[in-house]
Amino acid sequence: MKWFAFTLTVCMCILISSLAVADEIPLSEASAECIDCHSSIHPGIVSGWQKSRHAMIPPQKAMAVEGVGRKVSSTSVPESLQKVVVGCAECHTLRPKAHTDTFEHNGYDVHVVVSPDDCQTCHATERKQYAKNIMSHAYGNLANNKLHQKHEHAVLASTTFKDGKIMRSPANEGTRAEACLYCHGTKLALAGTEIRDTEAAGELVFPIIKGWPNQGVGRINLDGSMGSCSACHTRHTFSIEVARKPYTCKECHVGPDVPAYKVYAASKHGNIFSSLHGTWNFKAVPWTIGKDFTAPTCATCHISLLVNTDEQVVVERTHQMNNRLPWRILGLIYAHPHPIEPDTSIIRNKDGLPLPTDFEGGLAAKYLIDEKEMAVRKQAMQAACLNCHDASWVNGHWQRFENTIKETNAQTLTATRIMQDIWKGGFADRQDNPYDEAIEKKWSTTWLFYSNTIRFASSMAGGGDYGVFAGGRYQLSQTLLELNDWLKLQTKLEGAAKK
Amino acid sequence: MKWFAFTLTVCMCILISSLAVADEIPLSEASAECIDCHSSIHPGIVSGWQKSRHAMIPPQKAMAVEGVGRKVSSTSVPESLQKVVVGCAECHTLRPKAHTDTFEHNGYDVHVVVSPDDCQTCHATERKQYAKNIMSHAYGNLANNKLHQKHEHAVLASTTFKDGKIMRSPANEGTRAEACLYCHGTKLALAGTEIRDTEAAGELVFPIIKGWPNQGVGRINLDGSMGSCSACHTRHTFSIEVARKPYTCKECHVGPDVPAYKVYAASKHGNIFSSLHGTWNFKAVPWTIGKDFTAPTCATCHISLLVNTDEQVVVERTHQMNNRLPWRILGLIYAHPHPIEPDTSIIRNKDGLPLPTDFEGGLAAKYLIDEKEMAVRKQAMQAACLNCHDASWVNGHWQRFENTIKETNAQTLTATRIMQDIWKGGFADRQDNPYDEAIEKKWSTTWLFYSNTIRFASSMAGGGDYGVFAGGRYQLSQTLLELNDWLKLQTKLEGAAKK
Amino acid sequence: MKWFAFTLTVCMCILISSLAVADEIPLSEASAECIDCHSSIHPGIVSGWQKSRHAMIPPQKAMAVEGVGRKVSSTSVPESLQKVVVGCAECHTLRPKAHTDTFEHNGYDVHVVVSPDDCQTCHATERKQYAKNIMSHAYGNLANNKLHQKHEHAVLASTTFKDGKIMRSPANEGTRAEACLYCHGTKLALAGTEIRDTEAAGELVFPIIKGWPNQGVGRINLDGSMGSCSACHTRHTFSIEVARKPYTCKECHVGPDVPAYKVYAASKHGNIFSSLHGTWNFKAVPWTIGKDFTAPTCATCHISLLVNTDEQVVVERTHQMNNRLPWRILGLIYAHPHPIEPDTSIIRNKDGLPLPTDFEGGLAAKYLIDEKEMAVRKQAMQAACLNCHDASWVNGHWQRFENTIKETNAQTLTATRIMQDIWKGGFADRQDNPYDEAIEKKWSTTWLFYSNTIRFASSMAGGGDYGVFAGGRYQLSQTLLELNDWLKLQTKLEGAAKK
Repeated sequence: MKWFAFTLTVCMCILISSLAVADEIPLSEASAECIDCHSSIHPGIVSGWQKSRHAMIPPQKAMAVEGVGRKVSSTSVPESLQKVVVGCAECHTLRPKAHTDTFEHNGYDVHVVVSPDDCQTCHATERKQYAKNIMSHAYGNLANNKLHQKHEHAVLASTTFKDGKIMRSPANEGTRAEACLYCHGTKLALAGTEIRDTEAAGELVFPIIKGWPNQGVGRINLDGSMGSCSACHTRHTFSIEVARKPYTCKECHVGPDVPAYKVYAASKHGNIFSSLHGTWNFKAVPWTIGKDFTAPTCATCHISLLVNTDEQVVVERTHQMNNRLPWRILGLIYAHPHPIEPDTSIIRNKDGLPLPTDFEGGLAAKYLIDEKEMAVRKQAMQAACLNCHDASWVNGHWQRFENTIKETNAQTLTATRIMQDIWKGGFADRQDNPYDEAIEKKWSTTWLFYSNTIRFASSMAGGGDYGVFAGGRYQLSQTLLELNDWLKLQTKLEGAAKK
Repeated sequence: MKWFAFTLTVCMCILISSLAVADEIPLSEASAECIDCHSSIHPGIVSGWQKSRHAMIPPQKAMAVEGVGRKVSSTSVPESLQKVVVGCAECHTLRPKAHTDTFEHNGYDVHVVVSPDDCQTCHATERKQYAKNIMSHAYGNLANNKLHQKHEHAVLASTTFKDGKIMRSPANEGTRAEACLYCHGTKLALAGTEIRDTEAAGELVFPIIKGWPNQGVGRINLDGSMGSCSACHTRHTFSIEVARKPYTCKECHVGPDVPAYKVYAASKHGNIFSSLHGTWNFKAVPWTIGKDFTAPTCATCHISLLVNTDEQVVVERTHQMNNRLPWRILGLIYAHPHPIEPDTSIIRNKDGLPLPTDFEGGLAAKYLIDEKEMAVRKQAMQAACLNCHDASWVNGHWQRFENTIKETNAQTLTATRIMQDIWKGGFADRQDNPYDEAIEKKWSTTWLFYSNTIRFASSMAGGGDYGVFAGGRYQLSQTLLELNDWLKLQTKLEGAAKK
Repeated sequence: MKWFAFTLTVCMCILISSLAVADEIPLSEASAECIDCHSSIHPGIVSGWQKSRHAMIPPQKAMAVEGVGRKVSSTSVPESLQKVVVGCAECHTLRPKAHTDTFEHNGYDVHVVVSPDDCQTCHATERKQYAKNIMSHAYGNLANNKLHQKHEHAVLASTTFKDGKIMRSPANEGTRAEACLYCHGTKLALAGTEIRDTEAAGELVFPIIKGWPNQGVGRINLDGSMGSCSACHTRHTFSIEVARKPYTCKECHVGPDVPAYKVYAASKHGNIFSSLHGTWNFKAVPWTIGKDFTAPTCATCHISLLVNTDEQVVVERTHQMNNRLPWRILGLIYAHPHPIEPDTSIIRNKDGLPLPTDFEGGLAAKYLIDEKEMAVRKQAMQAACLNCHDASWVNGHWQRFENTIKETNAQTLTATRIMQDIWKGGFADRQDNPYDEAIEKKWSTTWLFYSNTIRFASSMAGGGDYGVFAGGRYQLSQTLLELNDWLKLQTKLEGAAKK
């Protein structure tokens, strides 16, 4: 019965809307000119855009929506932009003086790289939140951290082999751009202009941009802003459906260092998503738990505005993605409370190193959120959980997760203490670079891969496999033993040599 | 033509059914009371349930179905339950005295954890079959096996490092619950009660349950029963569609020890599923080969009742999942015929150890099914294969699979013989724990990961990659050599020390 | 508005087509006879076929299509086949004398294994292209290459352990068929006949075929032809939809040696595919960029005929899959320009070995395509890219990719130089077999797994993870150090022994 009624309603709606006077889609003159050529030259881009909300709804109409359904958070969209849909020119000719890649193109001042500061014209709140997101600082958090630079060097360096020694020279720009900076974001820079002979219009001048292409989350843009909205809101459809599906997060969160996607896909939540999402509504704003979807995706727990079936807000939208996260469980030697500031390169531990903990696990507390803030974030996260799980379930889950943080930190401490004996014994050199010898790399797998994986498996109830056999406790326990066996072998060999 | 006719028929059916007098869904008074509050408090749970068959079809109606389409296998569903749909109260207030977590809640005797003994009220046959499923004993098969306990300890133990030694202490309950027991199931136990201040009704008393939450396949429930139907029949939709899709099995079968999902997804069957399942019917009972689907999922081969397009039964439904499996190819040192009893902790090999083979591969034959039973199970499996493959294909495939069982067992024997020399040489200690040293862990990867992966790739024709480069023969052959090199190094060092 | 118009159009089309006089599907008498029995015996096969275009469209009708929409490339389909649909008999009784497995079956001369030479009856162009595809020679490229044979032996050999030594004997046919040859293809051979007691017709004679079943891309068929169209065009639906989805390529391209699928799935393209492909059209011929799909699959870039929204051809269809590939980035020690001939066993490097480079990376140039041909192939590939990306994006991407080829080759050279010192030092034996010792296997992971993975990640902009932490630069840099540490240890031990 219900299904029939629903079908009927849908049909009626379609009919009625079709009978209404067809709206002309109000495209700006400038964008119309772009499309004139580019629909032939770049049909994929134009087709993608034509499927977007940007191509259908002028800001004025979007701003007329009141309450939780509203998508345009700015209240001060310039009049001239309000009445036309968001076309090519609306983004690529905005603020021409701010962008160093602005160039004259067919009578318009066009820039190639659209930045968060362009997007904030309509999406001011999201841009403001994202500026507090640790991701927006991902370039500098790597580039301005001397220790992380050493680690990057130890992984990416070019090598040669001569006289029994491996010699390293710094990775070139191309390698860096497609390795760490693929996700972290490159630093874009104007490197001159070039003339290209185009099929459509003969010789034209274009800017040459170092670090391009890139869509990393912390890209340094040519207007000085940080981040790339299209990292998640994929160009040129900018579909909320894509951003809400876990495949978007997978682009950067699938490796053994941050196996979020793999763990999710093997979890009960991921199973429900994979099995049933064909019938869910990924476009509804707000997103209604139980009606639009019956299991969370990444966006559900970490970003989206959620309401319950009574239309009450369960949790507010945030683009500061650690807003619902008390603990930072990845990337560093020990799990720790989240940094207060998104710029983590300012952190100094008690040894003066730019790390949120020292090598023994002690917190650089003044740079990290306190227990009160942790409680606030935990509550924000649990507000979502509690819609499908009772309090005893949620509490039981959370206790295990915090137990696992403690336990994996303890295992990492064991590994690090063995490593410290190795350093003390002179079998490896910590001062120069603690990450660049074979045994140091073995040590860093214990925390960078295995402890991280165990914590991800725990945090998302992602199952036994990633917690045990698939880069989890099996490999962690094996590597601890191997580290110690190596130390014992070196000691024995040294002893033998001295005899 | 056909498609139009089909569409037309569907439309007519919808119309006719909609014109029929709308059935009131007969909800019990008790369940209605639950939903009154919980639709606001736990909208996700209630919405999930509302989408379920449980919420739509009272048992009486389900029991009226004759033949292979019948889903309720019990013939003695209590009268009081037959005429209402299966709501909250129908499961969570059943057999209140049997469950130690029963508590007074708004005038009802409610228990948190619904068990197979509750489900058997309607699904008696499935519950009976599942009791013979080795999975239902997964908790005890681990907890009551001294050797497996040593292995678990070697993987999960907490460690500290002191004076050059790694010290182990047993993993705590939280770690155990989210590691092996996540899939195997925890042992639930009532640990008292607590008062929680609820938003909806002020202070209320709730049971505290050790080991909760958990949905492992062999969970020990608070009524003493073993298993969790919701491991596969995901709460609270209990959708047969979800259970039949491979993502459900993936929750526990994706790691290198049991890479069933990964192998399936890379197989021809998995390709067809991934490419085409959007048009298949995952809800039909019985499930018709060729009509409802054109390639098997996990459930197809291992569980589901299948019929052919002539509506003849191809293979009966079973919830004893080794009913169509002659060989047990995972988890242990050597592949072997399936155990007779689901409780594998009773097995003793010729050395008195609780293993289905000895370390040389000899079978503990009296605990394992005989050749006759193996033939029966092989035939049950092949009955499904033969619908899409001719006998020469099926026989050719099966010969290769049994060849691979023999070959991987032989490779494991090679690894084990090297290991035995290591033990004999005193370079590792087998007696204390054969799994807890670095070199022992390297040995156990040969069978626990690589031989298993090769066998899974073989069994499902899962392709070259998992049989060779992705945790297959490449890694197996490399590890054999490394084991032997390690033995030779130790021997050499010992020799040098003696000089 | 547009959506309604579209829906209306679709409905009208369905209505009109349904009102037209229903076409009888013209099935040959022979195929009708097959189906009579086999629809009961093999309902899965028959159902699959019934869903195929083969079952619906007789060649005559398919040949009436002009231009880019045409699917039957032959112009000389025999008259007798033109007017009936492509049923069982049309393929399985074609050219009976050519196939050594032809047997008398119910009055017909039937062969089990349909080959590319059968398929070319209608698909001549594709068959001709495929003969130039390196894949069609995949069996011989492995079997006729002495060095590859040594590698295969080192991975697949049966082993025993005796007196401290691992002894190898060649892998048997079963193992070989399901390992490398699963993808490369087996060599089929008639091995006699057998009588089987069938349910439907009592005792019947069938051929026994060695190497069967197999659907590898370079299978040697019983008519002497090479390849298996059903490797990608999955039997018996032969659906272009399946072939165009990435799951088909995944069957052989998911391991660490060729992680194409994993990289794709984590790329922006893969994300868009996973998120949105439910609404794409995978059956349209030609395939229109932007209209039928908004991100590429494997087939899009490597095989399919693409047109733009102006219906101009962007790139021609090819079944020679390296037609758009200047570089061969997988499988061998160094990346190199593609071989000229599909038979790569004829290649000799300057040391007389059957490899496209020597161990120092020097090209066996006369067997490889030259710069001019490389430029042609690069342009063919970029023609597709340029529909959704401007020239600066495409050029920037390509520069990085070629930089990565250079850099990974340099890293492999470092690894190989260490290995050469190991060989020179007598710590391993290159002459006998350069791939069969533990340290040699460690060396081969540097190029076979890690350099390959890095290049795949680069080529498809597949993200940081596969380029860095997931079998990328992290593991490559670690393995280089471990190789050198091993060499230093051996040298030290040797020195100590001499004292």
